Amino acid sequence: MREVVTAALQMGPIQKADSRKDVVERMIVLLDQAKAAGATLAVFPELAFTTFFPRWYMEDQAEVDQWFETAIPGNETAPLFKRAREHGIGLNVGYAELTPEGRHFNTSILTSPQGEIIGKYRKIHLPGHAEYDTERAFQHLEKRYFEPGDLGFPVWRSQGGVMGMCICNDRRWPETYRVLGLQGVEMVMLGFNTPSVNSQMSSEGPEDRLFHHRLSVQAGAYQNATWVVAVAKAGVEDGHPLIGGSLIVDPNGKIVAESTTEEDEMLVHACDLDLCTFGKETIFDFKRHRRIEHYGLITSQTGAVAPNE
Amino acid sequence: MREVVTAALQMGPIQKADSRKDVVERMIVLLDQAKAAGATLAVFPELAFTTFFPRWYMEDQAEVDQWFETAIPGNETAPLFKRAREHGIGLNVGYAELTPEGRHFNTSILTSPQGEIIGKYRKIHLPGHAEYDTERAFQHLEKRYFEPGDLGFPVWRSQGGVMGMCICNDRRWPETYRVLGLQGVEMVMLGFNTPSVNSQMSSEGPEDRLFHHRLSVQAGAYQNATWVVAVAKAGVEDGHPLIGGSLIVDPNGKIVAESTTEEDEMLVHACDLDLCTFGKETIFDFKRHRRIEHYGLITSQTGAVAPNE
Repeated sequence: MREVVTAALQMGPIQKADSRKDVVERMIVLLDQAKAAGATLAVFPELAFTTFFPRWYMEDQAEVDQWFETAIPGNETAPLFKRAREHGIGLNVGYAELTPEGRHFNTSILTSPQGEIIGKYRKIHLPGHAEYDTERAFQHLEKRYFEPGDLGFPVWRSQGGVMGMCICNDRRWPETYRVLGLQGVEMVMLGFNTPSVNSQMSSEGPEDRLFHHRLSVQAGAYQNATWVVAVAKAGVEDGHPLIGGSLIVDPNGKIVAESTTEEDEMLVHACDLDLCTFGKETIFDFKRHRRIEHYGLITSQTGAVAPNE
Repeated sequence: MREVVTAALQMGPIQKADSRKDVVERMIVLLDQAKAAGATLAVFPELAFTTFFPRWYMEDQAEVDQWFETAIPGNETAPLFKRAREHGIGLNVGYAELTPEGRHFNTSILTSPQGEIIGKYRKIHLPGHAEYDTERAFQHLEKRYFEPGDLGFPVWRSQGGVMGMCICNDRRWPETYRVLGLQGVEMVMLGFNTPSVNSQMSSEGPEDRLFHHRLSVQAGAYQNATWVVAVAKAGVEDGHPLIGGSLIVDPNGKIVAESTTEEDEMLVHACDLDLCTFGKETIFDFKRHRRIEHYGLITSQTGAVAPNE
């Protein structure tokens, strides 16, 4: 038994007007709850310190950059990291990263329970678009404000197991989990901000969005025999609703905990990493069953190419 | 609108003692039902003409070979193909293939509504094992009796769209759907024979097996914006139970039809291939969103390799 008491720390909405200081105070309340529940790992959402700003079209780069962190921990976020270290809790938290070279990424980091930063991931599958789109009910400008991640999908040993990260839209792509699975991942941590309505099809509402979310997360867990901890920023941000549906999913693909609100809310579960072993050694023993000689298109070709009519 | 009226023709159990002639008669009854329902496409299970013989350990190759077809159509199976041609129905049907060179595959073929054989697929992801396994509740000797498929995952234009095939355990592997998806697949047809209990974990019964089955099929459909038609051989074969759960799944990942028995049973649905377009042009527009530079392990490495402790 290798139990990691894991807290999925869902966050309710963050309005444009909310300060980072206010947000970090809310996060610390959640972290204290996680400590009280015995957690050694806390997973926060994507872009946890700010509103989901890619819904806003901006042309002024200085205005854009105010949503980014130039250092982690920074002046305003340091109290969160300090409290986690005091509690002996490892953190996974998402934020907008502005590098010294002026590059912009949608990033998440992993700390050890001792408070060191041990891993960084930069979101690879950026959804949405780069220019103002008059056809959409609202904008989703991640391709405008971020570069695609350049760090691949690494894993790290921490919490007694093999830990991986991804962010939001990455969870819909089976390649994400598979690259992690091929490195023996035992827990995938991911945060998300998912609009409750498809901006390009208004009939696709929260029920469908939650269905697709659960489906993708559960399939990724099952098909790689790994835990997945998926954590929402939820609720209505300046009039724009985001789904909740934070989940802890076991290596069988079963949901063991799910949020019931669209507010700040803790889920906690003692995740036994040894439960990954059965799947990894039987039906998903990749070494015995995968046939890479037939997978070539997955890495040789980006887009779909249908046969001629 | 490009509607393909599709019949998923689930088959109940086939006992060892049942003759191919008896089985083909049952299949023709189903095919007549499909015709009455207006179908132009009929999907039968994996290994549709015989019992699921890989559960039986055999050392005598002549005994093994009796379960294989040396020609399709053959003397006993020809009436099925004749009836399909008369009905103007394209067939997808699975069988054990013994080639003139003495090679053995778990195969399925696709015919046009005019009765030509237009496609062949040989199962790539063979589950189970090659030698008698005393640790299992029952045997699953696909790796003993078959070679892995050598034809890749091709697609064919038929029924007004882009059609692909896979077989049984292939459906649990996201690589299967993705290689087809990269060729613009609009309908994946697959048959299966899935034991109702995991031979290596008796607590994993039919409810879990159906859950994993649905999860894999629905995720594959959603993540590639394709129809999937999954057809069981179901029920108790010589004391060994197989799950039902035949499904027609739309390009949103939603189940639009599911079997309710473990017997011969028809599902029928008018599958509009144009429903694939939205997903393929938005969230799963591979050309805009896939990042193959980070997927390398998927094709360079077969087994999982965890980082050093």
